Amino acid sequence: MKVNGKDYRTVWMEGSSVFTIEQNLLPFEFRIFVSGSYTETCRAIRTMIIRGAGAIGAAAGYAMAQACLEAPAGREESFLFNARREIESTRPTARNLFYAVERVFEAAKVSAEQAITEAQAIADEDAMASQKIGEFGKELIRDGYGIATHCNAGWLAFVDYGTALSPIYMSHKEGKNIFIYVDETRPRGQGARLTAWELHNAGIPHAIIPDNATAWYMSQGKINLMIVGADRIAANGDTANKIGTLEKAIAAKYYNIPFYVAAPTSTIDFNCPDSSDIVIEERSQDEVLYQDGMTKEGIKERILVCSPGSGALNPAFDITPVELITAFITEKGIVRSNDLSLVIG
Amino acid sequence: MKVNGKDYRTVWMEGSSVFTIEQNLLPFEFRIFVSGSYTETCRAIRTMIIRGAGAIGAAAGYAMAQACLEAPAGREESFLFNARREIESTRPTARNLFYAVERVFEAAKVSAEQAITEAQAIADEDAMASQKIGEFGKELIRDGYGIATHCNAGWLAFVDYGTALSPIYMSHKEGKNIFIYVDETRPRGQGARLTAWELHNAGIPHAIIPDNATAWYMSQGKINLMIVGADRIAANGDTANKIGTLEKAIAAKYYNIPFYVAAPTSTIDFNCPDSSDIVIEERSQDEVLYQDGMTKEGIKERILVCSPGSGALNPAFDITPVELITAFITEKGIVRSNDLSLVIG
Repeated sequence: MKVNGKDYRTVWMEGSSVFTIEQNLLPFEFRIFVSGSYTETCRAIRTMIIRGAGAIGAAAGYAMAQACLEAPAGREESFLFNARREIESTRPTARNLFYAVERVFEAAKVSAEQAITEAQAIADEDAMASQKIGEFGKELIRDGYGIATHCNAGWLAFVDYGTALSPIYMSHKEGKNIFIYVDETRPRGQGARLTAWELHNAGIPHAIIPDNATAWYMSQGKINLMIVGADRIAANGDTANKIGTLEKAIAAKYYNIPFYVAAPTSTIDFNCPDSSDIVIEERSQDEVLYQDGMTKEGIKERILVCSPGSGALNPAFDITPVELITAFITEKGIVRSNDLSLVIG
Repeated sequence: MKVNGKDYRTVWMEGSSVFTIEQNLLPFEFRIFVSGSYTETCRAIRTMIIRGAGAIGAAAGYAMAQACLEAPAGREESFLFNARREIESTRPTARNLFYAVERVFEAAKVSAEQAITEAQAIADEDAMASQKIGEFGKELIRDGYGIATHCNAGWLAFVDYGTALSPIYMSHKEGKNIFIYVDETRPRGQGARLTAWELHNAGIPHAIIPDNATAWYMSQGKINLMIVGADRIAANGDTANKIGTLEKAIAAKYYNIPFYVAAPTSTIDFNCPDSSDIVIEERSQDEVLYQDGMTKEGIKERILVCSPGSGALNPAFDITPVELITAFITEKGIVRSNDLSLVIG
């Protein structure tokens, strides 16, 4: 996608370095982070310099390729084994991370060159899958629709195009008149900071709403459908995604509003029969207690926004049971949630 | 309730001045705001120096009494009529405000002294009603319960004790082991700032959670019941309360978790047959786009937390249909939602 007239992917590799848009600085600053080693790329994933299902996957694949280049002669095997463990530990819920690491780890058994080729292929496939998701998904969107989305499953969360936002970009390109209700997505505000930034960049009409307001706009007939992304989809269709997704899906069901999960099939974890095996990452309470932002003087500042004596809980994801999901928008087509197994074929 | 060992109400009147805990400064600073005129008290309500259903009601009653004292001889009638209009326009959704203003306006026809007596009576009744709500409500709470609440319907929102928190205070006093899940309640954070401050002051175990996480904790069996307050209850039981209440009520229904609205019967608007007549206040988008808090140097700061190019929507309340409410906890007892009319008697 274009930023200031120039085409960007969210993450790419040149030589032995991994380049990524520094997402912690957005929406206030657009800067590229350069990682010279796999441990540095791990840190970028852990601290959410790079975040979002597909972008994490591509970055993890590149990290594994970097590890290949760094492996000391004679003890490649143990080095790569440890590197794999380290990369996998950065974000335990993200399916694409494990998927990418495994593919590059296998390729690394042939050669470092093969590992890099595989990592590049994963990034390319991610971008292509997102494009296909947009093409299938746009058929669900009619002129005049109000559409809600949660968190950021835009191009910043993938290598390009995005998943939940890809059908929105394509509908806008076709001239459909749409309006996007952007959940701010506390505690980290990926909706208010990243999705809003993307939509503003693309000139698509939208408003940020408090996470508390989605059901209200549903009750008022303002929202015709809701599309979200996914961090991991169990074989039965149960879906782990950003905390709050479950609550929105329940509200959509209550108001009979179609609720779509847009994700490449690489997000489906067939080793995971249902949600009971999905690990939910608990992040630092400071993400709830403090907020980062910009003062009117343009200075970045962190402020305490909660009562000083109190602690917070901060689960990063929740699990939406498949019964609440109307269908999955994948690169292979739109799959009703009760025939997810067809995607395997 | 006690603050630093001293008993306080949230709002009271001495002479011609109205005193109120300055809630915009909490949780970082505890200060009393003194209003010398009814227009100053109006400003305090509008800017949410004083907020919360019952506290707004009491403050509005006192404001009407102040207007009585200020009315110029010879044109009392038009002065009081205009003052009433001005007070009523401060917060259009709050039922208790209209209820209190009407009572004091009628009393003012007798004398200014009678108006003050009436305003004091309203505040006293509010405190007593809250205490009774606690006594009835505590019977619903068992030892070991996890309880969710939204916004602040604690003593800060009323004259004393509170509504949603009153049964919690009484259960804690009886030695029940309970844990409170405090929705942070974006955009203004009344849960994170006021409810957490109250519970911390009272030594009741609790955690602040992002508004997005309530349904997740419900799905995990952590929440045994949810209690919220109300800003206006229609005759059929439809309830206007802080934005997000609707979403929580839908989630509670989905998980078969009892969902209680705690409110004095003065919050019921029998002129309002159902929710279609309730006006929902739309507040400034800046409440969503910016956050107020404290830097680590202890300086109060306002920061932009959203993408600079984007706007926001900020409905202050939503309406929870009566079918989602298990029962109302009132000062007259616990009323199942399908026999709300019994309360009239």
